[in-house]
Amino acid sequence: MPKFAQRMQDMENTAVIIRGLFNAMGDPETISFGGGAPAKEGLPVDIVREICADVLTEEKRGQEALQYGAVLGVADLRQAVCDVLLAPKGLSPSPDEILIVNGGLETMNLLCQVFIDPGDVILVESPTFVHCVEIFEMFQAKCIAVECDDQGLVMEDVERKIKEYHPKFVYVIPTFQNPTGKTLPVDRRKRLAELGSQYDVIILEDDPYQELRYSGEALPPIKCFDKTGHTVYANSFSKIFSPGSRLGFVYTKKEWIARLFDAKTATNSHTSTFAQVICAEFFKRGYFPEHLEKIRAIHRERRDAMMAAIDKYLPEGTKRVFPDGGLFTWVELPGNIDTTALLKEANENHVHYIAGEGFFTEGGGKGKNCMRISFGNVTPEQIDVGMKRLGDLIRSKL
Amino acid sequence: MPKFAQRMQDMENTAVIIRGLFNAMGDPETISFGGGAPAKEGLPVDIVREICADVLTEEKRGQEALQYGAVLGVADLRQAVCDVLLAPKGLSPSPDEILIVNGGLETMNLLCQVFIDPGDVILVESPTFVHCVEIFEMFQAKCIAVECDDQGLVMEDVERKIKEYHPKFVYVIPTFQNPTGKTLPVDRRKRLAELGSQYDVIILEDDPYQELRYSGEALPPIKCFDKTGHTVYANSFSKIFSPGSRLGFVYTKKEWIARLFDAKTATNSHTSTFAQVICAEFFKRGYFPEHLEKIRAIHRERRDAMMAAIDKYLPEGTKRVFPDGGLFTWVELPGNIDTTALLKEANENHVHYIAGEGFFTEGGGKGKNCMRISFGNVTPEQIDVGMKRLGDLIRSKL
Repeated sequence: MPKFAQRMQDMENTAVIIRGLFNAMGDPETISFGGGAPAKEGLPVDIVREICADVLTEEKRGQEALQYGAVLGVADLRQAVCDVLLAPKGLSPSPDEILIVNGGLETMNLLCQVFIDPGDVILVESPTFVHCVEIFEMFQAKCIAVECDDQGLVMEDVERKIKEYHPKFVYVIPTFQNPTGKTLPVDRRKRLAELGSQYDVIILEDDPYQELRYSGEALPPIKCFDKTGHTVYANSFSKIFSPGSRLGFVYTKKEWIARLFDAKTATNSHTSTFAQVICAEFFKRGYFPEHLEKIRAIHRERRDAMMAAIDKYLPEGTKRVFPDGGLFTWVELPGNIDTTALLKEANENHVHYIAGEGFFTEGGGKGKNCMRISFGNVTPEQIDVGMKRLGDLIRSKL
Repeated sequence: MPKFAQRMQDMENTAVIIRGLFNAMGDPETISFGGGAPAKEGLPVDIVREICADVLTEEKRGQEALQYGAVLGVADLRQAVCDVLLAPKGLSPSPDEILIVNGGLETMNLLCQVFIDPGDVILVESPTFVHCVEIFEMFQAKCIAVECDDQGLVMEDVERKIKEYHPKFVYVIPTFQNPTGKTLPVDRRKRLAELGSQYDVIILEDDPYQELRYSGEALPPIKCFDKTGHTVYANSFSKIFSPGSRLGFVYTKKEWIARLFDAKTATNSHTSTFAQVICAEFFKRGYFPEHLEKIRAIHRERRDAMMAAIDKYLPEGTKRVFPDGGLFTWVELPGNIDTTALLKEANENHVHYIAGEGFFTEGGGKGKNCMRISFGNVTPEQIDVGMKRLGDLIRSKL
């Protein structure tokens, strides 16, 4: 049979991990701290029902929602991105600098189409979001891990590796990072934007969790410190509206939007008009602030329940990140526990997490005793039961 | 600033054409025979309203529609593809052999990710669908045109060029082809499937118009004659349900679905759950047969109006295809009319078409006196007015 493209082999190791992430979603008896889904109880089902009824009652609007649309996205949604999501953060793009994509991850795919030739280097955090690594590897980029401390990327190592590897991108999730839940402080954000400008490197700022803050002060995006257009700001509607709508956006300068336009037409023409019209209306009707308070409250309670459960059930010597927001915490176990090896037994005990090792592109056994724990789509009761199961299992191995 | 990937340069010539296609969509005074949109009057606005109301009233179903979903797609929709769309054509896949994508074109993108290395050859029709050429060129494939006659691909030339170029794919739109409206006869379909098997080449059958038949007998897809799995069947819900939902599917063997799964996760994770749930319900509730009759009637009337208008307004010596279905006809003008040069003046006269030249990958001025005329999203009255405008302009140049 015809042979596969070389890129399929280059992405195979990471694709194995991603397949595992998706395949584990099945068993209904399992309490899952894997995945990255937000609370289903926070999804705006009633609001979407109301909007659908209205939009689809006006014939012209209904037809527009079901017909082909603009490549860059529905104008009302791009305007809402500018007015409702970006202006309060001190960012003031024009709607022409916004492209609507089919879920936040698609931005990374399209940016790779535009910028990445095989062999190009992308600097990533250590650990980093493995799903994006799969994208980068599909484009045959070489991912190089940058040292991280308790606050995220270490700027000296970023600069050193920029000089050494001449990367195309520095990929960073600055706020409530995936997988660790850590947040990059303001001074480092500013410095990272400067490094992009100074060394002509694209800072790819992926910020999908940033609205889900439960404690502490909101920080400005890296993009706020960008004076040369080297920082590209990517975000998603999955956590603040609905993952199933598959909507995200990217904000960058017009010259790059023009190229992303080409890559988008050659990927899937444009993002669902229907989903965009409904999402735009969600913002236009002013539902967002109240909805955000609601989902923050739901997830805050879960974050707190998770912190309490970790402290209660996991063995002494366990380290964990206290995340000020988002959906994840990062747990480092004491002793010689191998979380990859332990996962099968955990699944037999009907509890699931993501083993830490896969989030480290540098390999070498890093993260072997770590795990990413998601608290987004589990109730406080499930968190207590599931973490007890996990704690009992881990203690039995010490 | 960081330089673009090589592929952006390789796709530039075709990207210019695609940008033109999308940018021309704007002016409301223009009667457009460009684009490939179906009749807005045929979009199932009322059905979708009913389904949305029901799905979003049940809390659990509403949450499922708005949450992350399976990479391969919503199970009910994959089942509907098998039962409602493929079984009546003599195809009997299992749902595991179906992947739901974000609009029909995404299949070509994902198949390129899986199979195309830079420099690989793809055989295409002459003329062919320029939007797919853009995709192929983004993947740095080399498109080689195969000779076509009044019935489409000439099998002798397909075989000759397979032997000469060892292509990865033969890309073909066998039914109511884009841009010509021609349909490949049964004997050639059978032969094409055999050639794929014999020479180990993927026959990429793109069949989005096939349900929209207004006259003549339905023909079996090429896939029906495939004994080795070399034919991949791609289709879209854009023409039979709604373009704005951005839904399509691909049917191929499980080993290739497994690779498409990887490419899909590294493109945009999965297709909108919300859109899929609604579309699945459209089929489950049995709306499809009646809806299909309705949209066939609408488009049949427009096809007939277009044929009459061409015969009435275009000058003697004009050749046109009588399409038994779909959305397009192909017009060849007499004399030395250059349709690319004429387009600006046509737009000033508030009528739009797509110039023929861009659909020929081989260049050399082929198609210079041709145009693709779409009759999908224009009323019979608009067809009459618009074709008179166009005919007057053309006659003034002879």
